[in-house]
Parts: sequence; structure tokens; C-alpha cells
Amino acid sequence: MSIIIAIDLGGTQLRVAAFSPQSSTPLRVIRTSTPTLRDEIFLEISKAIDTLKTEGELLGICAACPGPTDPARGIILSAPNIPGLENYPLGTLLQERYGVPASVQNDANMAAVGEWRYGAGRGHKDLLYLTISTGIGGGVICNNQLIIGAHGLAAEFGHITVLPDGPLCSCGQRGHLEAISSGTAIARYVTEQIAAGRPSSLAEETNITARDVAMAARQGDALAKEAYDRAARFLAQGMADFLHLFNPSIVILGGGVSQSRELFFEPMQQLLQKLVMSSAYLKELQIVPAELGDDAGLLGAFVHVSLQQTVLGDLANSHL
Amino acid sequence: MSIIIAIDLGGTQLRVAAFSPQSSTPLRVIRTSTPTLRDEIFLEISKAIDTLKTEGELLGICAACPGPTDPARGIILSAPNIPGLENYPLGTLLQERYGVPASVQNDANMAAVGEWRYGAGRGHKDLLYLTISTGIGGGVICNNQLIIGAHGLAAEFGHITVLPDGPLCSCGQRGHLEAISSGTAIARYVTEQIAAGRPSSLAEETNITARDVAMAARQGDALAKEAYDRAARFLAQGMADFLHLFNPSIVILGGGVSQSRELFFEPMQQLLQKLVMSSAYLKELQIVPAELGDDAGLLGAFVHVSLQQTVLGDLANSHL
Repeated sequence: MSIIIAIDLGGTQLRVAAFSPQSSTPLRVIRTSTPTLRDEIFLEISKAIDTLKTEGELLGICAACPGPTDPARGIILSAPNIPGLENYPLGTLLQERYGVPASVQNDANMAAVGEWRYGAGRGHKDLLYLTISTGIGGGVICNNQLIIGAHGLAAEFGHITVLPDGPLCSCGQRGHLEAISSGTAIARYVTEQIAAGRPSSLAEETNITARDVAMAARQGDALAKEAYDRAARFLAQGMADFLHLFNPSIVILGGGVSQSRELFFEPMQQLLQKLVMSSAYLKELQIVPAELGDDAGLLGAFVHVSLQQTVLGDLANSHL
Repeated sequence: MSIIIAIDLGGTQLRVAAFSPQSSTPLRVIRTSTPTLRDEIFLEISKAIDTLKTEGELLGICAACPGPTDPARGIILSAPNIPGLENYPLGTLLQERYGVPASVQNDANMAAVGEWRYGAGRGHKDLLYLTISTGIGGGVICNNQLIIGAHGLAAEFGHITVLPDGPLCSCGQRGHLEAISSGTAIARYVTEQIAAGRPSSLAEETNITARDVAMAARQGDALAKEAYDRAARFLAQGMADFLHLFNPSIVILGGGVSQSRELFFEPMQQLLQKLVMSSAYLKELQIVPAELGDDAGLLGAFVHVSLQQTVLGDLANSHL
């Protein structure tokens, strides 16, 4: 039997899975904590692959990684939550060790591929996937092709300017969508407004999270509600931009924040109606929650290997 | 001999050209004024095709049209400068009359294809084309594939929000890039500031154009300079968004406004350096003027037929 190795390199958890090319149910998954040292990550991954490759002949490997990657060069450019992974040639190292194609891909891109093939996006040729949690990331599929750009850096949905000179973003720029509509940004807005003297039921809290803000908003806290309204408003504005640029038939929203239906998802959808330049952009458009949860990236990495290239069209029409 | 018919339906001029599939030099071009009546446009085009098809066996037809089209349904959705063309099934009518594949495509998308195949974008797989004149339009090619979206409405670069609650856009929304950085918007800004009492060498002019503003700016007029600075600043902001979303290896700027090098193009490029989230987006990135001028759309329509589908990859590697 042939096997495909898919890796999900998370900030806290590392998963290495073996798949048969014919099934999205993994044959076996090895889970460990993500090591904190650069070289230990490769050791941990290769130890897992050494174990898994007894299951069959290795066809290829793909690792879904947090942060930007350069797939063409097999390099992790950086990983925000894993120190020391700057310019780390994980793809090259895996390819050298196992003698099969091995690629490194952004995890949100792989989640888009996973949702397209096995999740909420099945049957769609033009798909946007956004994940909204501590940050905002995403992936785009146009005409059944994953869009990664010249150096693998496309689809950074969190990093468009929605408010010139607005709040500081994790990337160092100002007024990006991530700096206003991510969970981190929602919590920070409430914290800053409380520090500026605004009343809130969260005034005595330390380390306020987006979840705390959601709970307070549901209990009627005006500041908490305002924080979500603001996040939803700018997400709607950014979403209109994305529709005008990509004209998808489906937008899939993943991540914890977008699960707050009445606080975030629904107000965003209502505002979006008013912000598109033509109702044609909303024609037959679905905006839906992601279906695959934490498995999206791992499944996407599996799909990516099974497609070999980023041209996804053939598989879309096949019956695996 | 086989021939391909390419049509450029402009607001004032209509061009219908016959090409041999092997050459980008047209065999013959018929030019007329664009008729003002809906049915006369089809009559004028078919009269020209009837003349041209004596040159050889017709393989296919593509019309580059101003405004949005639905290529899958063969329909011009609207044409801002040609009244009466709402939901006009030009593609279907041509296909029925001539019995060959006939498509209608947005002219900026076709210009992108033209520049990619024969102009400034030769050899690039990931390309953005922006045209900045009275409005702002564009086209995107990712991995040698034209991105049109689910209904042909993608790549509306002029219609992203760069300034929430900003100036009114031609589309009815506020703060879009087109409403600040197009030629129309530059002229309007100066006109409005003069009406509000600002001094300017253009104060006595009526019907100020972007060209007037450029001349005044070069002669030291502070308001005129400010209008171009503002347009360049927001274009840079929008351009950073586009780079983060598409990660192209080349951006091609067409249209009259972007030809103002020292007033517009250069300030925009300088600002862009500061606005990208990572210098990786500028690595090997070229930002260059368009090469094909008014012929880009016509050539793109020719290329589009010769590729039959929007998958451009094969031709990119061929040696036509």
C-alpha cells in the first residue's frame, strides 16, 4: 500500500498522520507537543514519519505550518508562535531524508484546501476561507486552483488596511483587519476603553479575552457589544473588498470568533448587503461556518500531496 | 486559413479585428464609432465580422467590453459609457449567428491577458494589471490563469474601501480607491477644495481635468500637488492590500493617470515600501507601466480565444 504523510505543525500541538491516497480517514495519527527548539521539531517529525512509514510505501509529505512559507523553496519563513523557525528549510530536510516530494504550506491555505475537498466548500470552484481567532488568516481557491502567489505569500486576509492610521497590527502596520476584527483586537479594544475610563462589567477583569467580551455582550454590557459591532463592521467592509476582488461562490468562516453568530457573523452579513457595489456579488453566494475544525489543515495537507501540484481541477472532477 | 475575431467595444470607438492564430499582428482591423443604440451595436459588429470572415475559417470570437460581463452566460451586465447595454446577450447573439464559441469579457481583464502574453508581463505567472484613468479597473493572473471568479466579477481593484465614509464612488459606495485615486477623483478633489475657498492657480478654470491638475502641480500649485499626493498615498495603501492578497511578481499600471511618473507613480512606489507587512512582498517585484496601450484589450481578446479556456498555462509554455 502507498501512504501520504500530512503534518500539522501547530503552536502547541504537532500532528503527523499517515493517509491512504484513497481515503480522508487517516490510517494513524501521532500527536505530540510542539517542541520549543528548532532542531527538535525536525527530530520529532522524522521520528513520527519513521514509525508511520512502516504502513506502506511513502508517496509524499506536506506540512501545514503557521505563518508564511515559501513552498517553491521548501522553507518556513517564520512561525509567529514557534520561536527559532525563521527561514527553516523543513521541506528540503524532509525531501532529503525520505527521497519523496515534501512541501511546506501555510496552514490557512491548507485549511482552505481541506474545506474545499472535504468540508463546507465541496463542489465550489471559487472559494474563500477565512479563519478568525487570535489572528486572521485565510486561503483562496479560484477555478479549483489554490492561489499562493509568486512566493507563497498570497491570501493574507488579515492584512488589508480597513482603517487608515488605525490600531497597530501584529505585523507592524496600522489599521489592518486583524488589528480590529480578530479576537485579540476585540479584547484589546475593550481593555483600552476601560483604561480610558469607559464603564463595563469587565472593568475589574484582568487579561480580558474575546470570549469574556462575548459573554459580557450577551449579558447586555454596552462596551462589549460595541467591540463586537466594531469588529463585525470592519469585517463586513473587508469582506466586500474580498468579494469585489475574488467574486467567490462561497465564503467559509473558521476560527473561534466567527462562531459568535448573533454578535459577529449575523451583523457582518447584514452590513455586507449594504457594502457590495452590486447585488450580483451576493447572487448565489453562501457564507457558512467551516466544517472541519482543527482537522482542516491536516486534511488539506493530505489533499495537497494527493494532487501533487496546486492545480486542483482534476481531483475536483474525480470520484476519490 | 483559420481566423480569430477580437472585438474591442469602447465607449467611443468600436474595433473588430481578424487575427491568424499564429500572430499577434492583426490581418485586418475595422474601426467605427460605437453606435449609441443597443441593437445597432450588434448590427455594426456583425457587419464587420461578415466582412472579415472572408479572410478564413472562423475559429472563435471574443469581445472585450467596458464594465462587468458574465462570460459563462455570454452577457454584458452593464457598460457605464454605453447606455442600454444592461444584460445584453452579445456573446449568445454572436454564437448563434456564427456557430462558433463567442465570449464577452471585461476589457480590463482582457488587457491583463494581453499584457501577460505580449506586453510588460511576458514570462510572469502571477501578474496584476491596473488601469487608472477616469475609473480604476484591472485584471489578475495567478499561476498563468486569469481570475474571473464565480460570475466573472473579480478583480474590481477600484472598488475596495481605502477610506471608510470617504468620497462617494461611481458605484454608489463610499471611500473606494476609484473615488480617491482615479483621474476623475483627482480633478473632483481640486474642484471641491477650490469651491471650499482654497487658493489654486486653477481657481478660475471650469471643468478641471486630471491633466489640468498635473500641469498645475508641475508648475508648483500646492493644491494640485496635494491632490496627486493624496491619490498616490491611497493607491499605495490599496496596492499593499493587493500584494498581501495576490503576491504577484509584477504589477502593470496602465491608463493616463499612472503615466504621471514624478507626481503619482514614484510617490506611490516609495510609500508602498513602508506599507507592506514584509519586505518579502517586494522581493523580485516589478512595478512597471503597461506596454500595449489601447491595443491591450483587443490583443487580450485574441489571446483569450486562442486559449479557448481561461487556463493559460499551456500557451505560456508554448512557442506560438
